[in-house]
Amino acid sequence: MANVTVNFIECKDKKPKPNADKIAFGKHFSDHMFVMDYQADKGWFDPRIVPYEPITLDPAAMIFHYGQTVFEGLKAYRTPRDRILLFRPEKNFRRLNLSSDRLSIPAIDEELALNCLKQLLKVEKEWVPKAEGNSLYIRPFIIATEPNLSLAPSQTYQFIIILSPVGSYYKEGIQPVRIYVEDEYTRAVRGGTGTAKTAGNYAAAYKAQERATKEGYSQVLWLDGVEKKYIEEVGSMNVFFKVNGEIITPELNGSILEGITRMSIIEVLKDWGIPITERKLSLEELYEAYEQGQLEEAFGTGTAAVISPVGELNWGERKIQINKGEIGELSQRLYDTLTGIQTGKIADTYSWTIEVK
Amino acid sequence: MANVTVNFIECKDKKPKPNADKIAFGKHFSDHMFVMDYQADKGWFDPRIVPYEPITLDPAAMIFHYGQTVFEGLKAYRTPRDRILLFRPEKNFRRLNLSSDRLSIPAIDEELALNCLKQLLKVEKEWVPKAEGNSLYIRPFIIATEPNLSLAPSQTYQFIIILSPVGSYYKEGIQPVRIYVEDEYTRAVRGGTGTAKTAGNYAAAYKAQERATKEGYSQVLWLDGVEKKYIEEVGSMNVFFKVNGEIITPELNGSILEGITRMSIIEVLKDWGIPITERKLSLEELYEAYEQGQLEEAFGTGTAAVISPVGELNWGERKIQINKGEIGELSQRLYDTLTGIQTGKIADTYSWTIEVK
Repeated sequence: MANVTVNFIECKDKKPKPNADKIAFGKHFSDHMFVMDYQADKGWFDPRIVPYEPITLDPAAMIFHYGQTVFEGLKAYRTPRDRILLFRPEKNFRRLNLSSDRLSIPAIDEELALNCLKQLLKVEKEWVPKAEGNSLYIRPFIIATEPNLSLAPSQTYQFIIILSPVGSYYKEGIQPVRIYVEDEYTRAVRGGTGTAKTAGNYAAAYKAQERATKEGYSQVLWLDGVEKKYIEEVGSMNVFFKVNGEIITPELNGSILEGITRMSIIEVLKDWGIPITERKLSLEELYEAYEQGQLEEAFGTGTAAVISPVGELNWGERKIQINKGEIGELSQRLYDTLTGIQTGKIADTYSWTIEVK
Repeated sequence: MANVTVNFIECKDKKPKPNADKIAFGKHFSDHMFVMDYQADKGWFDPRIVPYEPITLDPAAMIFHYGQTVFEGLKAYRTPRDRILLFRPEKNFRRLNLSSDRLSIPAIDEELALNCLKQLLKVEKEWVPKAEGNSLYIRPFIIATEPNLSLAPSQTYQFIIILSPVGSYYKEGIQPVRIYVEDEYTRAVRGGTGTAKTAGNYAAAYKAQERATKEGYSQVLWLDGVEKKYIEEVGSMNVFFKVNGEIITPELNGSILEGITRMSIIEVLKDWGIPITERKLSLEELYEAYEQGQLEEAFGTGTAAVISPVGELNWGERKIQINKGEIGELSQRLYDTLTGIQTGKIADTYSWTIEVK
């Protein structure tokens, strides 16, 4: 199925591209999108590239009522030599299927999906921004479309990919963020949907983010749902700490999303011979390390920011500053390495990038 | 705002009503629906009754990506004297706002919403089925509509009410259900969204339901997300147990949905002088009560079934039968009382019903 024919209906009225230095995240979309349908009796069918246009759904479509939906997020980068690169996109389609499994959504053919994405990017290659630090954000998602208020998995779905040119995450250089430890609201719990990239996890986090913002913090640090003791994620990112020369990141415990930046960072650290441990890490332990002067760096990882240094933590009223509120040496080196590989500026010794030709 | 003008665009092509004895739940919809829009700078505006028609949304609409959505479920009943009754509808709009608060969705005017629902029901009164046991299921819901992939609450929403004629839940008399105790998957945890009626909670439950069905059981019993020890809900219903003459239901602990049938059952039991306790109840305690011959009845409560007797529980391989797998005397009395009030067959001494005139 991976070499199936993708129908193409060309958009008549091409949109102007947004001004490179004024791009707001997630508000501009390219001229075309990819769509594929699913019916229980036919499987996935009719892959097509069509003009970017509204979706029309029955008001009883299951996506509106029972939340059967999954998504992914990745980027296409333009290199200085005008090549277009994707960073480990097969991992995104792998994870999309893992998310789908949790949400009782039928799997897609991962190879087919990647081929279709490449075809869409060929059509839309002018939409991959040229400006330094900018990129084309790619949002694949699946929604349940059957009009039926019964509590059961949908019999029909749509798989859609939309593209959005985005600006540099760090317009004025990397700014470490101040983090508020959330101890009331819960992002996810074992047996729940925390390991899946599904809509419901995200809106559920807004209340905590609201409070953090009100208190003057930019992100939330999430604790585990069971004991409210162990560190899980920061905002919608995975999180790493450098303690006395060792890097520690929370282990994949059944409620943490397995980030593709996370797995790449771990591989790079191992490659560099820097000790990296995936394990349970309590806030109490982290604060003790701080007291002993051993907490050297902290950073979130994700597709949007790649590396987001943490400059301050506030747990109750226990505020600590990490690395004088500045980006650490290792954080910077990891950022330069990952973004260098993604944008083709340094050699991709890991074979992580795929060129769209 | 509660007496605002509701615009009305009449549907040209009226649909045939479904055959009374062949109605599948949630698959038939009436000729009109209610819609109201929200913009951050205008609040809720343009309440209108329009033909039932597809919703058209940008593929980047936030409902598809971050799950900002809430819903309600209630019914309109036709009495033997042809009056149309709603059962405690103000509680549904109250709960809708509580759910919205958790999902960072702006509140609606509850009185206005109820008035709009009544106007919609006047237009659609022929859609309230006449057949014994049938009713008109009402589904109010709110969806985030802003086209924006940023992780932040939407600036625009739609509030929609659709109507669906439904058959009797018990076509062949009340059949007690067999319940499978789920000890891997989690429905909700304190600090999560379990108390809100929001889409993400429902799709998350399909995996467990799948397994229960495979094992030959019709519903899942959910345990608390923290200790996996205490009883929370059954399927998408609240649950009650009769132990040695006393009725016990799990207390509202921050992860259980506060059912309107649940609160009504509690009031009726108090009125009847039957001891009713809301408290933590572990499965272990319940199984001990069974061993001692004290577990007399068990039943789920919800809008769809009103009372759903539990005839069997399977926890690991510990299977127990309750009341010989038959509906208990109290369960039957509660069912007759609630449905009697809802359908106007017995006097509504609680003033719970509201007539649509």
